[in-house]
Amino acid sequence: MANRKGRAFPNGRRHSRKATRLRCLTVTNTICLENKTLSLMLQEIAEQPAALARTIDAEREKIARLGRLLKQRDIDLIVLVARGSSDNAALFGRYLLEITTGIPVSLSAPSVHTLYRAKLNLQHALVIGVSQSGAGEDINQVLENARAGGAYTVGITNEPSSAMVNVVDETLLMHGGRERAVAATKTFTGQMLLFYLLAEALAETRPAWSCAAIPDFAARALEQQPAILELVQRYVFMENCVVVGRGLAYANAYELALKLMETCYVVAERFSSADFLHGPVAMVERHFPVILFAPPGVMLPGVKSLIGRLQELHADSLVITSDLEAAASCTRAIIMPKEIDEFVAPIPYIIPGQLFAALLADAKGLNPDQPRSLSKVTRTL
Amino acid sequence: MANRKGRAFPNGRRHSRKATRLRCLTVTNTICLENKTLSLMLQEIAEQPAALARTIDAEREKIARLGRLLKQRDIDLIVLVARGSSDNAALFGRYLLEITTGIPVSLSAPSVHTLYRAKLNLQHALVIGVSQSGAGEDINQVLENARAGGAYTVGITNEPSSAMVNVVDETLLMHGGRERAVAATKTFTGQMLLFYLLAEALAETRPAWSCAAIPDFAARALEQQPAILELVQRYVFMENCVVVGRGLAYANAYELALKLMETCYVVAERFSSADFLHGPVAMVERHFPVILFAPPGVMLPGVKSLIGRLQELHADSLVITSDLEAAASCTRAIIMPKEIDEFVAPIPYIIPGQLFAALLADAKGLNPDQPRSLSKVTRTL
Repeated sequence: MANRKGRAFPNGRRHSRKATRLRCLTVTNTICLENKTLSLMLQEIAEQPAALARTIDAEREKIARLGRLLKQRDIDLIVLVARGSSDNAALFGRYLLEITTGIPVSLSAPSVHTLYRAKLNLQHALVIGVSQSGAGEDINQVLENARAGGAYTVGITNEPSSAMVNVVDETLLMHGGRERAVAATKTFTGQMLLFYLLAEALAETRPAWSCAAIPDFAARALEQQPAILELVQRYVFMENCVVVGRGLAYANAYELALKLMETCYVVAERFSSADFLHGPVAMVERHFPVILFAPPGVMLPGVKSLIGRLQELHADSLVITSDLEAAASCTRAIIMPKEIDEFVAPIPYIIPGQLFAALLADAKGLNPDQPRSLSKVTRTL
Repeated sequence: MANRKGRAFPNGRRHSRKATRLRCLTVTNTICLENKTLSLMLQEIAEQPAALARTIDAEREKIARLGRLLKQRDIDLIVLVARGSSDNAALFGRYLLEITTGIPVSLSAPSVHTLYRAKLNLQHALVIGVSQSGAGEDINQVLENARAGGAYTVGITNEPSSAMVNVVDETLLMHGGRERAVAATKTFTGQMLLFYLLAEALAETRPAWSCAAIPDFAARALEQQPAILELVQRYVFMENCVVVGRGLAYANAYELALKLMETCYVVAERFSSADFLHGPVAMVERHFPVILFAPPGVMLPGVKSLIGRLQELHADSLVITSDLEAAASCTRAIIMPKEIDEFVAPIPYIIPGQLFAALLADAKGLNPDQPRSLSKVTRTL
């Protein structure tokens, strides 16, 4: 539902998880998906609450044991290795792990290992590969090198029989079933969730957050679908945009931008609100579209100050937030439930982004399940 | 000079470093800068060979001593902290340091320290802040925290009396004089050069490369200016593009994209050739502009394979390379001297990029010295 200013508010309706067709009859007659088969991408977006709950149930105990083992090994560095959406999940993992465990984290540059063949000193390192398919040769080669060099290696994957499983010391699995859409959605949030479980297991003291409520918050986020279905009409001719997030929500900016590039062919830049001010803000002119993640927490004042700057520049801003002041200062807003705090926000906050990309692709007459030039597994070295 | 296909070749003329006006009388009469005062940005681009030579002379011995000191401290992690162009120099430093020293490198997320107030375990870490002005509060706060936590801290800056100098154990200075243009050029390559000196000093064995020839190669790169002055006319109406580099040249893609955003207001995405294939390639349609760094070395086959893919997609490609096959497969090329190998390429290869941005801004009727919404020092936390 959109109010008069076109802002999207939760409409209180529960999203039906068994639906294979869009249920909503929208208030305008320009939009009607009633008789269309839902894209795989939309189906898999909707599967996320259940997939997340299953992953918590299936993996929590194993990861707690892994945490106890790793604490004995005196890990002083965590290295994350990934590509594409998995690399965005790793970017989230980087913030969460550093903040929660105090162990420094490095996002690996695969070519240092695979092409320059450097031998890094990783003896007290935990090296984690993240790959939906577990088939990425570059990722697996880094894991093999790291293991040979003394690192403890972990694979995060959706495929229990993949090559990755054979090269790592321990595997963490998502339990959301095979992902059929080319654009990753449920595996992205599944990877994020495994980082929550791992951060919890590696923390010296019990963290202030718990991931137990995340599946329910993900379901609440899905309630935005009818509102976003209307909202996307406004963006059908958007050719480029900037997506902004920071801290724990920084990876959300990368992931939404990637989804917009993959499924809508929008040239979507991604920045932290701080980096954006160090140069790229010069691009912004009247009506330039900027999408912002503004969950509650320590990042919110900075994002709101950027929103003020965007108002001065007459930019066109779309914010995903539970802060009504931030919402009122933007051109459009997707309002999230107040109960979602900064530490659990990243998963529920990416869901409206996924819906936005999938529904915008549809509104543009594109099939989000068949992005041109892409296949599900990309092989690079 | 451009040949019939519009490709730019070195024309053998020496660039006059004392020139404050463009000397070239171009073959077309659409371009004539003869009577215009050169932008500060173009002046500072031209100052780079001399600035680089001075920095080597002034800093090499000090950095060699620092290297001996750090080897005694058993450094097992290097953390780099920066924003904007300095962060791009740090991204280069990350590859060079890992490849040359085998010590893992992490690019810091400042907000983990400044906003989430995490206490990272950095006892055996070398933490390096990179800031042209030395005034970035977030960078300095990370350095202070790291030093308090036992890390050895180094500042790389252009301002010997900046706040940064007072919070670090050691300072490495660029010696190219104050940078007056808002868009960083000579400080960017100066920062890169200091990473060369540091990598050399920290390496266990003498590296296969030497940075001694870099100032001369930078001067050779400046010879491209007349050719690029003509080339940019073709890009006056380019609204967005992708810039691709990988490995040691990955940071060049980030830096050229930032320059295009800051001075030309082009929405310029930046990717490694591998990451580009993991999703964003879907954006590419007929005539979509892609700029590629293709220096010689281990990355070249991958970049050439991407060029082949771009040909199939009928993209519009501009390559900076010394490989004539790569050049012939692209829509346009800037041909670099053959003698520049992969390890010394990053500095001379960014120079045609800097010239491209500065001259394109001018061709678009913009003043590259006054990017809208920017000032020389950006304060963020």
